[in-house]
Amino acid sequence: MKSLKIETILDASGWVDAKGFQAGSIACDIRKKGDMDRLDLCVLYSEQPCSVAGVFTLNQIFAAPVKVCREVLAAGMPCHAIVANSGNANACTGDPGERDARAMQAVTANGLSLDVSGVMVCSTGRIGEDLPMDRVEAGIGRAIAELGANSCHGVGSARAILTSDTREKICARKVSSLEGAFTVSAIAKGAGMIQPGMATMLCFISTDAAVGAALLQECLRNAVDLSFNAITVDGDMSTNDSVILLANGASGVSIDKNTSELLETFQQALTEICRELAAKIVGDGEKITKVVRIQISGAPDDASAEKIARSIGNSLLVKTSWYGGDPNWGRLLDAAGYAGVPMVEKDIELYYHSGKPGDAPVVVFSQGRAHHGLKPEWKEVVASRSFVIQLNLNGGSGAYELLASDLTEGYVHFNKSE
Amino acid sequence: MKSLKIETILDASGWVDAKGFQAGSIACDIRKKGDMDRLDLCVLYSEQPCSVAGVFTLNQIFAAPVKVCREVLAAGMPCHAIVANSGNANACTGDPGERDARAMQAVTANGLSLDVSGVMVCSTGRIGEDLPMDRVEAGIGRAIAELGANSCHGVGSARAILTSDTREKICARKVSSLEGAFTVSAIAKGAGMIQPGMATMLCFISTDAAVGAALLQECLRNAVDLSFNAITVDGDMSTNDSVILLANGASGVSIDKNTSELLETFQQALTEICRELAAKIVGDGEKITKVVRIQISGAPDDASAEKIARSIGNSLLVKTSWYGGDPNWGRLLDAAGYAGVPMVEKDIELYYHSGKPGDAPVVVFSQGRAHHGLKPEWKEVVASRSFVIQLNLNGGSGAYELLASDLTEGYVHFNKSE
Repeated sequence: MKSLKIETILDASGWVDAKGFQAGSIACDIRKKGDMDRLDLCVLYSEQPCSVAGVFTLNQIFAAPVKVCREVLAAGMPCHAIVANSGNANACTGDPGERDARAMQAVTANGLSLDVSGVMVCSTGRIGEDLPMDRVEAGIGRAIAELGANSCHGVGSARAILTSDTREKICARKVSSLEGAFTVSAIAKGAGMIQPGMATMLCFISTDAAVGAALLQECLRNAVDLSFNAITVDGDMSTNDSVILLANGASGVSIDKNTSELLETFQQALTEICRELAAKIVGDGEKITKVVRIQISGAPDDASAEKIARSIGNSLLVKTSWYGGDPNWGRLLDAAGYAGVPMVEKDIELYYHSGKPGDAPVVVFSQGRAHHGLKPEWKEVVASRSFVIQLNLNGGSGAYELLASDLTEGYVHFNKSE
Repeated sequence: MKSLKIETILDASGWVDAKGFQAGSIACDIRKKGDMDRLDLCVLYSEQPCSVAGVFTLNQIFAAPVKVCREVLAAGMPCHAIVANSGNANACTGDPGERDARAMQAVTANGLSLDVSGVMVCSTGRIGEDLPMDRVEAGIGRAIAELGANSCHGVGSARAILTSDTREKICARKVSSLEGAFTVSAIAKGAGMIQPGMATMLCFISTDAAVGAALLQECLRNAVDLSFNAITVDGDMSTNDSVILLANGASGVSIDKNTSELLETFQQALTEICRELAAKIVGDGEKITKVVRIQISGAPDDASAEKIARSIGNSLLVKTSWYGGDPNWGRLLDAAGYAGVPMVEKDIELYYHSGKPGDAPVVVFSQGRAHHGLKPEWKEVVASRSFVIQLNLNGGSGAYELLASDLTEGYVHFNKSE
């Protein structure tokens, strides 16, 4: 009998699902549109000290708050809080922007009687404009006053970080074990500038398990590689991407390298959550109409398989054909061919698959030729909102899976101007 | 006094401008739409034997005619003719496709009493469908019957290779020297799947100078690197890209490594022609409304500068903002930042420039901050159909220039289905 069980929490509230975590979310009109109904700032808190892990954008142009977060991680001190705003990315804002990020950190630390090195800072939104610091600082004070384990503020915080997203993204798992139960819960935002390493995205994860910082970082890195780093909407990587995980130990369950089964289950729950949120981010990409899972196999190695998947998933001609529901396999092969990976055309096998268990894949191309007679079946598969592309190079054991969206006239129209 | 002079031929007719070159263009309804008015096949010919140079797609998935052309080049025999069709790419067609390409070559060789290794073959159009060989073979016979130096067939051939292009692309130069005069003339097509190494493009160049095959290949490679390999419309690299240059020596002017001034001038004329055609290809990209010259400087090296230029030129968010006439410099910096090249934000200088001689560049970003007060000037620059982006990293001597287009709702709509 298996002593470990992972359950999805169906009515998850985000940050506050795990024990000892509190949230406060408020509206302070950071966009300066006179809109005091749109939540745009939150403070996430744990009274108990937390170990912290973080994964950040690889963009050389990174926002001031990313710099501050990296410093907090490097300091290696216990962490208690995250302060986050939407509507302004505080990126490309120079020294004044860095001062503003530090001020957000200091005001939060002060309001919570913490050391500044216990506070992470995140911003998302428009690049290149200074934060309205009067609003932000007053807002932080109000958010701190709202702090509690109230599920409204859990969901409210998930809303406060949204930009062009159309809905909040929340996901949680409860893990039961002989040693007790613990919870992992997370909120995320995405929408545009979505191609990993990582997407334009924020994700804040809380767990009441006790996990040391080094191990926590390893688990988070594993989960991110299999989730947020395996999606693309538009191929653009943002200046502000941040995934932050806090573990406060309030459940009384301790996880380390010696509790290998517990550790594996924690990793699995964490990865599941990140994958589910990553799928929600693609599914809520700007004006998208299709979500396509690209599965590459038979490549010389995994890195080559990833290159091919990204080449396909970012090809404008492939993405527009998905939008049109056109089974244009020629563009797929063309995009695979320019990924810079050696391949033999006659060895390639290409299939469309509905993604539904029990359905068989429909062959598109094999032995150097297309199976034109199956075009009605191809069309049926690609007419769905989501489907799977399976490309086997038969040239090795490398594999990779990428979740991608289509490209629509709506996306172009939406991004014509900010 | 300079003895060498390069003149633009204003009423250029393409392939037949240089002495001893003939063309025949016909319509044979390769698209099977019952349209016998649309030219879709041409035979380009020189009775005198030619040295030949060629540069082809780097795509691992390359069309059957590309394979045949590579064999002709490798054989190193004198070349006399090119046969080309539009409407069908003969790509991803397996062994039957290769037989068809060889049949096009053989029928042309037979009709002109040539060895097959004297005939290059090119196709462009839809991927994955078999050529209607009855039409193609009859068409080749008719095109050969039309062969002549008639300018109608020069322009006709430029039309016969078009796919989604809206106009034919022709460019020629006459070079005068003490040793005599010679001509370089070319036709090209582009439109979609346009990102080099190389674009979805064909380009056929004729010259009546005498140039040995090895030197001719070197000159062509130089010209292509500075032209067709420095443009992007949609970032997609096609299966059929081919640039072919034939030199028949009919002018009596001989060029080799010992005639360094002549060689330099030939190279210059050739590069000018290729750059002009490359600009025409971008300017006629599918449904584009803007042509933007991206100039990167101050990078660690030229290759890094190229990476940054392509990162910007292929960013969907950058391209959509151009379409909207929105001076969204934040997206430019973001795209530069994820090119994988080290850079220091505070050292970066970004300018918009009208591209008109005499106009001063308008500063956008320097010392880590945007010059928001100049927004009206930014807007004025990016409102034009063509403008220049100058990004200086101040981090080295690497530089690169890329010609890019915007991304429009029209492009997405046009490519939804074939």
